[in-house]
Amino acid sequence: MGQLELTFKKLEELYKIADVRPVEWSDGKIKWINVKMLPWKEEFVESNSIERLAKAIKDLEIRGAPAIGVAAALGLAMVAYNSKASTTKEIFKELKEASQILSKTRPTAYNLFWALERIVRKAEDNLSINDTQEFKEIVLNEALKIQIEDIEANIKMEEIGEKIIKDNETILTHCNTGALATAGYGTALGVIRTAWRKGKKINVIATETRPLLQGARLTAWELKKEGIPYKLTIDSAVGYLMMKGYINRVILGADRILTNGYVANKIGTYTIAVLAKRHGIPFHVVAPTTTIDPKSSLEDFRIELRSEEEVTTIMGKLRIAPEGTSAINPAFDITPPELITSIITEKGIATPPYEKSILDLIL
Amino acid sequence: MGQLELTFKKLEELYKIADVRPVEWSDGKIKWINVKMLPWKEEFVESNSIERLAKAIKDLEIRGAPAIGVAAALGLAMVAYNSKASTTKEIFKELKEASQILSKTRPTAYNLFWALERIVRKAEDNLSINDTQEFKEIVLNEALKIQIEDIEANIKMEEIGEKIIKDNETILTHCNTGALATAGYGTALGVIRTAWRKGKKINVIATETRPLLQGARLTAWELKKEGIPYKLTIDSAVGYLMMKGYINRVILGADRILTNGYVANKIGTYTIAVLAKRHGIPFHVVAPTTTIDPKSSLEDFRIELRSEEEVTTIMGKLRIAPEGTSAINPAFDITPPELITSIITEKGIATPPYEKSILDLIL
Repeated sequence: MGQLELTFKKLEELYKIADVRPVEWSDGKIKWINVKMLPWKEEFVESNSIERLAKAIKDLEIRGAPAIGVAAALGLAMVAYNSKASTTKEIFKELKEASQILSKTRPTAYNLFWALERIVRKAEDNLSINDTQEFKEIVLNEALKIQIEDIEANIKMEEIGEKIIKDNETILTHCNTGALATAGYGTALGVIRTAWRKGKKINVIATETRPLLQGARLTAWELKKEGIPYKLTIDSAVGYLMMKGYINRVILGADRILTNGYVANKIGTYTIAVLAKRHGIPFHVVAPTTTIDPKSSLEDFRIELRSEEEVTTIMGKLRIAPEGTSAINPAFDITPPELITSIITEKGIATPPYEKSILDLIL
Repeated sequence: MGQLELTFKKLEELYKIADVRPVEWSDGKIKWINVKMLPWKEEFVESNSIERLAKAIKDLEIRGAPAIGVAAALGLAMVAYNSKASTTKEIFKELKEASQILSKTRPTAYNLFWALERIVRKAEDNLSINDTQEFKEIVLNEALKIQIEDIEANIKMEEIGEKIIKDNETILTHCNTGALATAGYGTALGVIRTAWRKGKKINVIATETRPLLQGARLTAWELKKEGIPYKLTIDSAVGYLMMKGYINRVILGADRILTNGYVANKIGTYTIAVLAKRHGIPFHVVAPTTTIDPKSSLEDFRIELRSEEEVTTIMGKLRIAPEGTSAINPAFDITPPELITSIITEKGIATPPYEKSILDLIL
């Protein structure tokens, strides 16, 4: 059995646990759930066009930092795999062009750049191979490995993370960090799912997460599918719910983590962290170590400003503001380390002071 | 000229300044703008049914604590005015029944109960009058006086309040506290409007204010009409915008103010106050003294829990959560006095310690 065959076999095994998969390889194409259509419709898209895949990432048909990373890796593999070029070098050139296209989709998700770099590097390291088929299989194998590692990391971080959850707790989560945001299974929502599967009696409060309502649409969909008791709330009710003592713990994800403990995540995360601090509620970030950015500093952070229509309409379906209204729409915010109780990864839990504990995880 | 005629004349004068009026007397009927239809449609409703008026208040066709108070007072006057009863006592009985109906519409807005009590008391004080027409006119006159006093109070508090605004400031406001929330002109948004009319160069950031989007629909509509530069934002972006230094001042309204300085207002207010405190941004509450509740304590506060559909849908027009999703939907929250820089009323500005300064305003 060749390496690629073994990799596919391993993936099949993992799919038994990770039964919801937002993005996967499908015989020379990429197949994904268009999460923009949830909960209205379970729509799968298949395409072998890198431009179509880039559009899917940009328009949030595929979203969540780990899922974007996997989609990008599989996308490069797809370009290589389908290439008509007769030399490894020419295939590599096409792959680099595809990497350029994908790198322009979402500026904040660190996993995107990490995954692109890893595939490009793998391809570059194998440029001396003459057999184009062998080269293509090496690239595809690497992309599938990213997917496998992400699912394995999720499973690992849930095992580590679920221990912090106590029986009868009500947990607040923000945005969607479930299977739909990853290669499968989930990060923060995965921790909650594992605690539930282990028999802990928990309740979840999910913020709806305007503007694109990933909490109302996706997290509620996953919680319902899993049978975990949950209630939805508007984003601005979190303060009051904490004041009333309804929330015992906050668990959410990250799009980029700096080594000094600053966390970029879905807009609204910082506000929740400030409120949690005031009310003495533990605040946990769950993410794979691929989300940790060892190179950037706070000054380098580029927060994505998305279109005004995301605010002035509800998902383009319903206009809610008068014509001519402009809006400011940052997609992420930055939470400083002093508001974060711990950062949970597949390699262990980092706690303050983060300068040391985060580096310990990735070095 | 009779008293009632003089009152109507005064009202006409005030209407020249308060050109947007959400609720008014219309020859034995109540006429209101159905603000639920804004900004999609400017729909006026006229009715002489107290049940219809109660429904309009409950369903937020009429909303904003001062506007609710005026609607309730005019509603009682309408019942008296249209009564077929032959004695003052019987009219009073009908008026009391109408007061019962209206008192069950919205539990948090203090102005509602204040206005109902004032009209009932005025009627009770005049039970000895035999001429039913004279009795009816006294009641109507009192209701119109509440409307006049609210507009006058608004104009007064704007004069007082606008002095705190400096040139070139960007002001954050939440929900709608404009003409549409009052008898006319507005409270917090009125302060902003007056500063603008006096030539101050200001910018406004309006939160959309989920679940019913009063910021996106109504505040944006009023700001656009007035020509004040504004941007809309989602509720959960406030923390990030403050962190980036985009906001110089917060000005918003109140639904009920306790004499110790606790303020009940639209859900999300507490969260904004916590964030403003963290970032050293002044946080002002603007409301007429009729919003001050001298009797209740914090324990008496009843926060209205509204329907789950307000969260699981967008205004009943678009479902955003999977079927079977339940939601928790408090309509208001409570902001403690230590987070409030000042409370601006038509009788002056209260500052900490509020125990003394608020009583000084109303005694």
